[in-house]
Amino acid sequence: MDTRRAEAFSDGVFAIAITLLVLGLHLPGPGPQDHSLTYQLGHAWPQYFAHVVSFLTIGIMWMNHHTLLAHVNRVNRPLLVLNLLLLMGVVAIPFPTELVAQHLRDAGGTAAAVTYGLVMIVISFGFAGIWIYVVTHVDELGMRPQVDALRQSVPGFTLGLLVYVAGTLVAAYVSATAALTIFGLLGVYYLFEHLPAPTDPNS
Amino acid sequence: MDTRRAEAFSDGVFAIAITLLVLGLHLPGPGPQDHSLTYQLGHAWPQYFAHVVSFLTIGIMWMNHHTLLAHVNRVNRPLLVLNLLLLMGVVAIPFPTELVAQHLRDAGGTAAAVTYGLVMIVISFGFAGIWIYVVTHVDELGMRPQVDALRQSVPGFTLGLLVYVAGTLVAAYVSATAALTIFGLLGVYYLFEHLPAPTDPNS
Amino acid sequence: MDTRRAEAFSDGVFAIAITLLVLGLHLPGPGPQDHSLTYQLGHAWPQYFAHVVSFLTIGIMWMNHHTLLAHVNRVNRPLLVLNLLLLMGVVAIPFPTELVAQHLRDAGGTAAAVTYGLVMIVISFGFAGIWIYVVTHVDELGMRPQVDALRQSVPGFTLGLLVYVAGTLVAAYVSATAALTIFGLLGVYYLFEHLPAPTDPNS
Amino acid sequence: MDTRRAEAFSDGVFAIAITLLVLGLHLPGPGPQDHSLTYQLGHAWPQYFAHVVSFLTIGIMWMNHHTLLAHVNRVNRPLLVLNLLLLMGVVAIPFPTELVAQHLRDAGGTAAAVTYGLVMIVISFGFAGIWIYVVTHVDELGMRPQVDALRQSVPGFTLGLLVYVAGTLVAAYVSATAALTIFGLLGVYYLFEHLPAPTDPNS
Repeated sequence: MDTRRAEAFSDGVFAIAITLLVLGLHLPGPGPQDHSLTYQLGHAWPQYFAHVVSFLTIGIMWMNHHTLLAHVNRVNRPLLVLNLLLLMGVVAIPFPTELVAQHLRDAGGTAAAVTYGLVMIVISFGFAGIWIYVVTHVDELGMRPQVDALRQSVPGFTLGLLVYVAGTLVAAYVSATAALTIFGLLGVYYLFEHLPAPTDPNS
Repeated sequence: MDTRRAEAFSDGVFAIAITLLVLGLHLPGPGPQDHSLTYQLGHAWPQYFAHVVSFLTIGIMWMNHHTLLAHVNRVNRPLLVLNLLLLMGVVAIPFPTELVAQHLRDAGGTAAAVTYGLVMIVISFGFAGIWIYVVTHVDELGMRPQVDALRQSVPGFTLGLLVYVAGTLVAAYVSATAALTIFGLLGVYYLFEHLPAPTDPNS
Repeated sequence: MDTRRAEAFSDGVFAIAITLLVLGLHLPGPGPQDHSLTYQLGHAWPQYFAHVVSFLTIGIMWMNHHTLLAHVNRVNRPLLVLNLLLLMGVVAIPFPTELVAQHLRDAGGTAAAVTYGLVMIVISFGFAGIWIYVVTHVDELGMRPQVDALRQSVPGFTLGLLVYVAGTLVAAYVSATAALTIFGLLGVYYLFEHLPAPTDPNS
Repeated sequence: MDTRRAEAFSDGVFAIAITLLVLGLHLPGPGPQDHSLTYQLGHAWPQYFAHVVSFLTIGIMWMNHHTLLAHVNRVNRPLLVLNLLLLMGVVAIPFPTELVAQHLRDAGGTAAAVTYGLVMIVISFGFAGIWIYVVTHVDELGMRPQVDALRQSVPGFTLGLLVYVAGTLVAAYVSATAALTIFGLLGVYYLFEHLPAPTDPNS
């Protein structure tokens, strides 16, 4: 099988998950209000914070997914299954995002931020699984040039996983807001640092 | 008509249906709480269970849909209509999923799990309808090699239908949780067992 | 501009609108219940009825949209604008669908079904606008063979519009349920009757 | 990297954001009602107004995005990151749309319309960022003919930004309804006026 429909399905899932995040932006209720709408909008800052962190995270995961699959010419059934398990983690992101948005400032903030970190750790393992499968099945998947560069990307992957583990520990023992800040900074870092792109063999 | 837009539309529907499942993951309410958020998140296990079973089920249905359409070079109007009826079942999945998530432990669990099973049975007939149409219209659809392999896939299809019928009966007379476990195990089984892929004629 | 991204965007909008219909399937509430879940699920039949009618309608509109654009080789700005106005009607469908699902049996049924019919009439004019633009700009859009067949499809278009007008009048003066049945039967009719497909010039 | 997956992902995000707007169309509640459904539907006009303005706005942004990317043959990492930041603004649109729909006639109208305008200003800067990057990296992105025409499109971009700033000031100091009308008229204007399309080198 070629990679076209697998990419189309994955692109769809990433695009929908990233867009559904907006449903987590809740409108201050239309009922009796002690405060002005401006105050309420400002007071709801945790939902914007959580939204931006999750948006950057899903966006960067899409870019890395894009880069990973650009290295192969074909997909087979095991790769589709690994991809499906990865996507199962990605589509869950709006749930911990909303948990954090609602509970960042109350007693549930720790549980919310730990849940957020655990979902990220699961997704990191999903990416690692696909990466390992791809670099160990070079012939079967019709690997494109630059596979060595892909092999050298282990440190980048490992870093992401370690930061998610560290952030989850910070969430559990220090501060939910600090943990979410760490997750956001990791997103900003990955905007600049990334997997090697496949080189166009014609260039 | 070539298969491109039919695949794009179907991929979109599958991708959205699988991602909308996350809206069934409900946040413990922000009102007065007798329990900690951690307790509430743990107590809500039926929603994660139902989410994972439905996610695997839709994901595998997408893979089988992918494989079925990979055997044809063209689509015609009757195949588009059959595909539309199949998709009508697929997009309904989030509804019984949420029924199960909410009622698995109360008196409505039986009705919820039976509804879930009935939707799966309807979808199984939809897949059977497309499969029968494809293998009986080989010339018109420009069938690719390996159509014999496709013909031999009847037992796999029949198994899925039988398991859904059995699971629905288990839901009605034994246990809703047991029925959902059966549906989940069928998903895991299909991760490994599947329709024959079309062989690339150039290889 | 070629038709690829216009088709991809339209396919996405149709696929999402048809899948969002499932959010109109409401779960009987988890609060105190006088009736069993089975009774409540059965009692909620208007929502399934409205769901199926709208699903078939959007599905058939997608197929006709597919067929219309298959006749052209290029899109230009005016066609993109007409397409956008058509899609504005299509994405609105879940709203009157939910109105009908909630109010079919109460005093608001008439207003709900009339709203449903009006949205369909607006969409019919949108399709007519695209159709007229396409058949009057044959050279600019790089029309494919069989444009005569497309020109002869006027009666089919007119029929759809007339039935939506008639159904809306039935909703206003006779019965909301009868009107929705008419809209559903029109959908079933179009499953069998349709726009002419472009002939492949190579065949 | 070629532009295919970046376009597919962006098309998906635009298509989903434009379709999610329908979730902002709220059904008058099924509870005790002092007024008929017809009256309630009419009384809810701000939600239709906000829906149409946002629909046109996202639709036109999609068309301009389409035109911008049609000028390049390749995307690179910085362009993907700029695109992601643009999309972060686009997916947020349903939130201020719902704010306006709910508060246009109450004391929160000013805050709602100013929020709406600020989101539009942020998106305008996003488009400007992509445009500047594209015209300053002609060689790297494999620019197609007509790049001069693209360079001459600065006035059109600047106009949009100025109108959004003016509309936001109108929202803050004059009238929320007037501001939304200005945003809607800008959408109608852009239906007719637009970025130059790339000329097909073969024509």
